[in-house]
Amino acid sequence: MKGIACLVVAVAVLSGTAVYMAHASGHANGEAAPIFGITIPPGYRDWRLISVAHEAGNNNDLRAVLGNDAAMKAYREEKLPFPDGTIIVRLAWSYVPSEENNKVFGRAQSFVAGPPINVQFMVKDSKKYATTGGWGFAQFKDGKPDATAKLETCFPCHEPAKSRDFVFTHYAP
Amino acid sequence: MKGIACLVVAVAVLSGTAVYMAHASGHANGEAAPIFGITIPPGYRDWRLISVAHEAGNNNDLRAVLGNDAAMKAYREEKLPFPDGTIIVRLAWSYVPSEENNKVFGRAQSFVAGPPINVQFMVKDSKKYATTGGWGFAQFKDGKPDATAKLETCFPCHEPAKSRDFVFTHYAP
Repeated sequence: MKGIACLVVAVAVLSGTAVYMAHASGHANGEAAPIFGITIPPGYRDWRLISVAHEAGNNNDLRAVLGNDAAMKAYREEKLPFPDGTIIVRLAWSYVPSEENNKVFGRAQSFVAGPPINVQFMVKDSKKYATTGGWGFAQFKDGKPDATAKLETCFPCHEPAKSRDFVFTHYAP
Repeated sequence: MKGIACLVVAVAVLSGTAVYMAHASGHANGEAAPIFGITIPPGYRDWRLISVAHEAGNNNDLRAVLGNDAAMKAYREEKLPFPDGTIIVRLAWSYVPSEENNKVFGRAQSFVAGPPINVQFMVKDSKKYATTGGWGFAQFKDGKPDATAKLETCFPCHEPAKSRDFVFTHYAP
């Protein structure tokens, strides 16, 4: 569920109950992330949901993991390894309390997605990325490759999930 | 983000780090929920993501809110009220710690989607549901209308969000 365990999370300013209506359906400015040369796949924000998670600690985020068609097919058919062409994206937003929701519930219990933190991709290409389990890794912030991302640490962090083709996230039915 | 504030959450047994790979892409057995007569829309599990949330307290869940095409269009164009035909679905899963992920992070910080709790729908039909703001409400568990759901309390709980057409969830870009 962590998507990429190695992520270096940019600290986003939390802003309470601000409204996050937006036009965006996934940035894609074409700039490639380092090492693996991955660009943002157009339309990823419209991909289907694999699962959701909350990372506490320094991350302090809510996250969704989406997959392209190849990813969803492999998940649902429980077929591993994921085929070449699979792309899995992990979106993370700041973990913010919702005062509006808490009023309805009558107590402080509601945490919602605040400002976006960053977006990470795992791209399967068994030949191109043969030395990292067939996966390339990338991180973007505001549509641009994240200069703080230490992508060389991604694969070592994902190795504990080798039996599931290096993917931590389980499908949530 | 709560989807439906009134929900009566069935307590699901938490099961640690169990694997939740599944074939399901949205149950739909055709049985209608009471009061509003809503059936499960086929294919809802493939709808696009609006946002994610964590409800603590008695709910203790992780949730995703998905929308059909009408919902997504309205969200992204920031057009209210939502048009007739809009359907918004809130999926909830038990909030479970991930021991596997925590090992990688080196501390207990990771919470993932465990067993499904229930699925709720808001269906917009301004004539059919005129007395409840144009919305019908339903809750399903394991593909069947949830007998514990007190659907008559849904609309009163949603009234604080009247300025946003009774929908709490904000779009997460």
